[in-house]
Amino acid sequence: MIDNILWQPTLIDIEQAALRIAPYIHQTPLMRSTLIDQLAGCRLTFKCENLQKTGAFKVRGACNAVLKLSAQQAARGVATHSSGNHGAALALAARNRGIPAYIVVPSSAPVVKKRAIIGYGGEIIDCEPTLVARLETLEQTLTRTGAQFVPPYDHADIISGQGTAALELHRQLAANSADTLITPVGGGGLLAGTAIASKSLRPQCRVFGAEPAAADDAYRSFYSGQRITEHTVNSIADGLLTTLGVANFSIIQQSVDSILRVEEQQIIDAMKLIASRLKLVVEPSAAVPLAAVLAHKSLFAGSHVAIILSGGNVDLEQLPW
Amino acid sequence: MIDNILWQPTLIDIEQAALRIAPYIHQTPLMRSTLIDQLAGCRLTFKCENLQKTGAFKVRGACNAVLKLSAQQAARGVATHSSGNHGAALALAARNRGIPAYIVVPSSAPVVKKRAIIGYGGEIIDCEPTLVARLETLEQTLTRTGAQFVPPYDHADIISGQGTAALELHRQLAANSADTLITPVGGGGLLAGTAIASKSLRPQCRVFGAEPAAADDAYRSFYSGQRITEHTVNSIADGLLTTLGVANFSIIQQSVDSILRVEEQQIIDAMKLIASRLKLVVEPSAAVPLAAVLAHKSLFAGSHVAIILSGGNVDLEQLPW
Repeated sequence: MIDNILWQPTLIDIEQAALRIAPYIHQTPLMRSTLIDQLAGCRLTFKCENLQKTGAFKVRGACNAVLKLSAQQAARGVATHSSGNHGAALALAARNRGIPAYIVVPSSAPVVKKRAIIGYGGEIIDCEPTLVARLETLEQTLTRTGAQFVPPYDHADIISGQGTAALELHRQLAANSADTLITPVGGGGLLAGTAIASKSLRPQCRVFGAEPAAADDAYRSFYSGQRITEHTVNSIADGLLTTLGVANFSIIQQSVDSILRVEEQQIIDAMKLIASRLKLVVEPSAAVPLAAVLAHKSLFAGSHVAIILSGGNVDLEQLPW
Repeated sequence: MIDNILWQPTLIDIEQAALRIAPYIHQTPLMRSTLIDQLAGCRLTFKCENLQKTGAFKVRGACNAVLKLSAQQAARGVATHSSGNHGAALALAARNRGIPAYIVVPSSAPVVKKRAIIGYGGEIIDCEPTLVARLETLEQTLTRTGAQFVPPYDHADIISGQGTAALELHRQLAANSADTLITPVGGGGLLAGTAIASKSLRPQCRVFGAEPAAADDAYRSFYSGQRITEHTVNSIADGLLTTLGVANFSIIQQSVDSILRVEEQQIIDAMKLIASRLKLVVEPSAAVPLAAVLAHKSLFAGSHVAIILSGGNVDLEQLPW
C-alpha cells in the first residue's frame, strides 16, 4: 500500500468509500444543544463519531483500506502499529473480512486499549515504547507474516475513508447546511478527508483543523509551509500527538482555511460541557474543536458550525478533571 | 390538582398526553450495544431519556400537568418542592406556557441543580433541608402566590406524562418489540406510567421496577402490600430516595411484575458500562435497571429487554468512582 502514498483522493473516492464501508459502520447521529449555542454565539451541530463502531471515526478509514485490498493482498492479513483507536479499528476491519490483524503495541499502552484490540480479534505484538522499536517490530511482523501494512493516516485510502464522516454529515444536514466544519487534527487523516469532501460539495464551506497548543505541529507546518516532523508534545489529547502525514499535509495546505490552537484547560472545559449538556462521553481529542470555537468566538459569530466528535474512548478512571 | 390524586390514568390518557406535550419534548433515540448484550445474555434496547430536554424524563410529566391546567388555574403560576430533576422540569414547562414557576429547594441542594432551575426561568424559594420545612415553605408559597401545586410523582397527570416515554418506546420498536421493560423506581411515576402503557399495548410484556437495596421501600411495599412511608435511605441513586406515591403504589401493585434490588457497587459498575460502551453520561438512578439485569441474568436470558435511561444529570466533579 505504500507506493501510492502521495496520490490524492477526490470526492469520487470518498463517495465510493462510503458505499464500500456502509455495511460495516454506523451512520452516526447529529446532536445539538441550545445552551452550548448560546455560550458559543453560533449554531453548532455535533456529528457523533464517538458513537461509531469501536468508539471512533478510525473504523471508516480502516474498513476502506482493508476492503480495497485484492484477495491476494488480503490473504495473509494486515498489520499496523498503534497504541490507540487505529489498532482497534483495523482489528475490526480485518475481522469483518475474515483475515488476521497484527497490531504492534508499545508496552506503555493502557490496558484498556489492548483489551479493545483483543476484543475485536486483533493479535497484539508487544514492543518497547520508542518509535524506532515500533517501526522495527512492525517491519519484522510484516516479513514474518506476509501481512499488508495499513498506516494510521498517511494514505489515500485512509483519507478517503475518514472523509466519509463529512460526506455523511453534509447529506444529513441537507438544505440545513453548515457553513463551517471543524475537526481535530493529529496525523491529519480526518481533516484532509473532511476538507476534500466539504470543498467539493460546498466550495463556500470553511474547514478548520483544531489542535492542542501543546502539540501544534499542524499549526506550525501550515503557517511555515514546512511539515514539522520533530516536536515535543505533552497534551491530554492523546489522539493528536502524532506528526502530520505527508499526503495529509499536502491536502491540508491546499484545502483547509486555518488551524486553531487551544490550551489544555480549554480542552477539559469543552469535554465537561459536552458531558453535561450533550450527555456524551468524548475523549479529550474530540473536545478540541468545541474548545477552539469557544476560544475564537469572533471567527464563528452567527455561523452554522459542524463539529466532528471524533471519538469516545476515554479511561473513566483517569478523567482529566 | 390535589383532588383527583387517586384517579388512575389509562392508555388513552397517556396517548393524549403524548399529543399534548409533543411540541415541547424530544422524541429520544434508542441505543444498543453488542458487548453489553453479550455480558447480559439478552438483547437490550436503551431509551435515552438522559437526552431529553432538561436531561431527564421528568419534563414529560411536568409539561402534561402544566398544559392540562385551565387558563384560570395557570394564571398565577405553578409551584413545587424539589431538589432534583422535577424542579428544572417544572420550570421549563411553566416557561413554555409563559407562567411563573416557584420551586422550593432545600438549602442543602447542589448548586448545579439550583443553577438548572434558574436557567429554565424558575424562581427558587430556599428552605431548611427537612421534609417539614419543605412542605411548610411550599404551603406558604402557594398561599402567597396563588400558584398551583404540581407534585413530582403522586398524580394522574404526572403518571400519564411519564408513561409517554414507554408509549414512544413501543412505537419506535414497532414489530421489533420488547418482551420486558425495566425502569428505575423512586416515587413511582415513571414505573406506573410505563406499566399502564405497556400492559395496555402489549399484555404479555413484563414490567419491572429496579431500585437500590439501600432504598428499597418500593420492594418492601410491593411484597408486603403495605406502602412503606418511613425508611432510611443512603444510596448514590439520588433520584430514587423518595417514598412511593399513593396512586403510584396502587398502579404498581396491579400492573408491575416485580421489583428488583441492586447493590451500590452494581449501580456504579452499570454506570461505567453505559459510559464506556454507549458513550452516554447517565446519573446513578438511570443505571439501576441495567444493574438489575446484570444482577438477575436468569430472569432475562434470551429476552428483548428495553430499559429507560431516566436521566443524565450527574455532578461531573463527584462521579461515584
